[in-house]
Amino acid sequence: MRMYDIIMKKREGKELEVNEIAFFVKGYTSGEVPDYQAAALLMAIMFNGMTKTETAALTLQMAKSGDMLDLSSIDGIKVDKHSTGGVGDKVSLVVGPIAAANGVPVAKMSGRGLGHTGGTVDKMESIPGFNTELATKDFIAQVQKNGLAIIGQTGNIAPADKKLYALRDVTATVDSIPLIAASIMSKKLASGADAFVLDVKVGSGAFAKTPQWATELADAMVEIATENGKKAVALLTNMDRPLGRTAGNWLEIAEVIETLQGKGPEDLTFICGQVAANMLFLADKGTLEQCQKMVDTVIQNGRAFEKFKEMVAAQGGDTHFIDNPEKYPKAAFIKDYTAKASGYIESMNTENAGIATVILGAGRAKKEDIIDPKAGIVFHKKTGDKVDEGDKIATLYTQKEEMANEAALLLDSSITIGNKKPESIKLIY
Amino acid sequence: MRMYDIIMKKREGKELEVNEIAFFVKGYTSGEVPDYQAAALLMAIMFNGMTKTETAALTLQMAKSGDMLDLSSIDGIKVDKHSTGGVGDKVSLVVGPIAAANGVPVAKMSGRGLGHTGGTVDKMESIPGFNTELATKDFIAQVQKNGLAIIGQTGNIAPADKKLYALRDVTATVDSIPLIAASIMSKKLASGADAFVLDVKVGSGAFAKTPQWATELADAMVEIATENGKKAVALLTNMDRPLGRTAGNWLEIAEVIETLQGKGPEDLTFICGQVAANMLFLADKGTLEQCQKMVDTVIQNGRAFEKFKEMVAAQGGDTHFIDNPEKYPKAAFIKDYTAKASGYIESMNTENAGIATVILGAGRAKKEDIIDPKAGIVFHKKTGDKVDEGDKIATLYTQKEEMANEAALLLDSSITIGNKKPESIKLIY
Repeated sequence: MRMYDIIMKKREGKELEVNEIAFFVKGYTSGEVPDYQAAALLMAIMFNGMTKTETAALTLQMAKSGDMLDLSSIDGIKVDKHSTGGVGDKVSLVVGPIAAANGVPVAKMSGRGLGHTGGTVDKMESIPGFNTELATKDFIAQVQKNGLAIIGQTGNIAPADKKLYALRDVTATVDSIPLIAASIMSKKLASGADAFVLDVKVGSGAFAKTPQWATELADAMVEIATENGKKAVALLTNMDRPLGRTAGNWLEIAEVIETLQGKGPEDLTFICGQVAANMLFLADKGTLEQCQKMVDTVIQNGRAFEKFKEMVAAQGGDTHFIDNPEKYPKAAFIKDYTAKASGYIESMNTENAGIATVILGAGRAKKEDIIDPKAGIVFHKKTGDKVDEGDKIATLYTQKEEMANEAALLLDSSITIGNKKPESIKLIY
Repeated sequence: MRMYDIIMKKREGKELEVNEIAFFVKGYTSGEVPDYQAAALLMAIMFNGMTKTETAALTLQMAKSGDMLDLSSIDGIKVDKHSTGGVGDKVSLVVGPIAAANGVPVAKMSGRGLGHTGGTVDKMESIPGFNTELATKDFIAQVQKNGLAIIGQTGNIAPADKKLYALRDVTATVDSIPLIAASIMSKKLASGADAFVLDVKVGSGAFAKTPQWATELADAMVEIATENGKKAVALLTNMDRPLGRTAGNWLEIAEVIETLQGKGPEDLTFICGQVAANMLFLADKGTLEQCQKMVDTVIQNGRAFEKFKEMVAAQGGDTHFIDNPEKYPKAAFIKDYTAKASGYIESMNTENAGIATVILGAGRAKKEDIIDPKAGIVFHKKTGDKVDEGDKIATLYTQKEEMANEAALLLDSSITIGNKKPESIKLIY
């Protein structure tokens, strides 16, 4: 088999065989296939796409390029949840405890934040003492015992994806649906769950800017899962405005706690309810309607919140702050951001809102940056809300006044206030 | 400027600016642009093509990546001739002397043969003593004095083309018309002539298998020349059968001598006449009709043959063999190849005929192979001719009987004899 022929075949729009895809992924991971041949193939894929079968095979080969987590020692249907990333997206931290409280084991490996979207691991690490670096056996043992653990990516998960992503990033071959779907799902297949709820974010704060594009991506991911013998459901959810009221690591944890206690903001509560119900549904806990009731029950009876606290304790986190979030240290500098005019918030560039949180210290512009767990934004008003001039739209939390001023400037250019009440915003498409 | 943006722009089907193309070619030649980014751009070009302006700019930048020969010290319009390569293609060696004998200076840099097509430099080197490695100043001086010199590629001609070609060869991005046209014409622009006659070969022995594809390539090459302020004419000529009667280095020189003396085979004489007339035409020597007469004149009065001999002498070749080609040493083993049936030769795979000459020792399968100047094939019959079983179709010249047997086997599978007289073959499309 020659890489040249594989590139030519794809260039000519023919379907690659599973063994050709395996040859490419193995060869590229080992270094036998050089970057330039991989780049040529990726560009040909940009133009000619991949069939369902090709995409599923690519994903499986990428997953098999590294460690494949074996969760078979955990009883029950292991359900994972994945979000394509957004601003203020703390859904995983709400639905994990809800699922676990209903007897669905959740063994979650999460990423760190980069760019305008936050990372689940960074959020959990804002809890003093919380350890996201468990050894695999401790990770599995915790899920066996408590039904829930959240850690960072360990070991050698899908190295082919890491290498391919780095190449796509410099060869203008990122935004291909089969390649994006394969990249996401390769890590999911390697992480060992049986079923996946995929939360595909759509809108100005998401990678997917249009529902149509997001639908294609969602379809591709679900197909990869089913072709590989896994169950999957995808939800398309709104990211035209930040999700919930907060963006920033500890600020989001505080909001997670409120939501698990039934006091969370409407949009976050609704989306978490939908995602969690689908997780229970995939775990064969009943009809979707029954599952929705089970979600409500564990919030009302406090078991979901208890499950969250249990996980924090099991992973070494200080539960004192979970019970008393108001005792958490405050940011050094807190500044209100107010409306410059009266009217309706017609739009809010959510990606810019995410970048503003990075400016405040809550995220990373580059990998090496250090995160300030206390930094971030609390939104009092979002797109669609009526404001009077001088009303608080947001509160900015940061270390230094100049960062707050810089973030405020960015918000100025990202928020449009006008006379027209925008159409009501769909939370789920 | 970032290479990423250039790749993305081409991927999206937009036209690249001259400065973007210059950035790519300079960066790739110097090594600042890595292979994988060049490969991604090349594949995007495969799919989205290049405009006339882009192709012309790419060609000029590739030419300027190395030495640009300055022929301005030679009086008159310098006309070069290029062939896309074929089997038995000795046209350059006939038309150069004809043009020079009519006062058109020809400073020709040629290539060596590789694969099934021969190389002009190898053919000239079959003349004992002939030196194809003149220093640039000696090359120019000889053209100033004699009006004609033929050498191998010297110095650092279009290094960007060398590097890009090597990359295209391993990334399945060879057969793009703008890239092929730019590759050919970059070397032509660097070699300093004012006008070009482009002989685009079409058929089973050529890179271009169909007249349509060849027309596109020819158009692209002519456009590159005119966009860069040069004159050019392209002829599409037949390569469905070997050109002339011979394939193999010295065998072809002997045929060149016959043709220059007016005793050459009809097809070769005709095509050389057309090419040479167009060279004179581009050099403003008269109307195409007048130029055709001038071609005939220098063959009839012997001045074209004298010019050839003059060049051989000037470059150190033994003119004894030019005057007495029958005295040239014979191949060690000579074998007739005869018709296996009676009828018409319906087809002859010309590429295979070229490979047969390589088997006999006349060419190179790989760069390091050493050529036997005496080896090759003389064709007595070609496509369209009537044969009786046992008639000589060809004579094979080689060192060893086993090579002749191997070549004969290949000819067996490459020549079809049937009852149908094929339609008469167009020499020029």
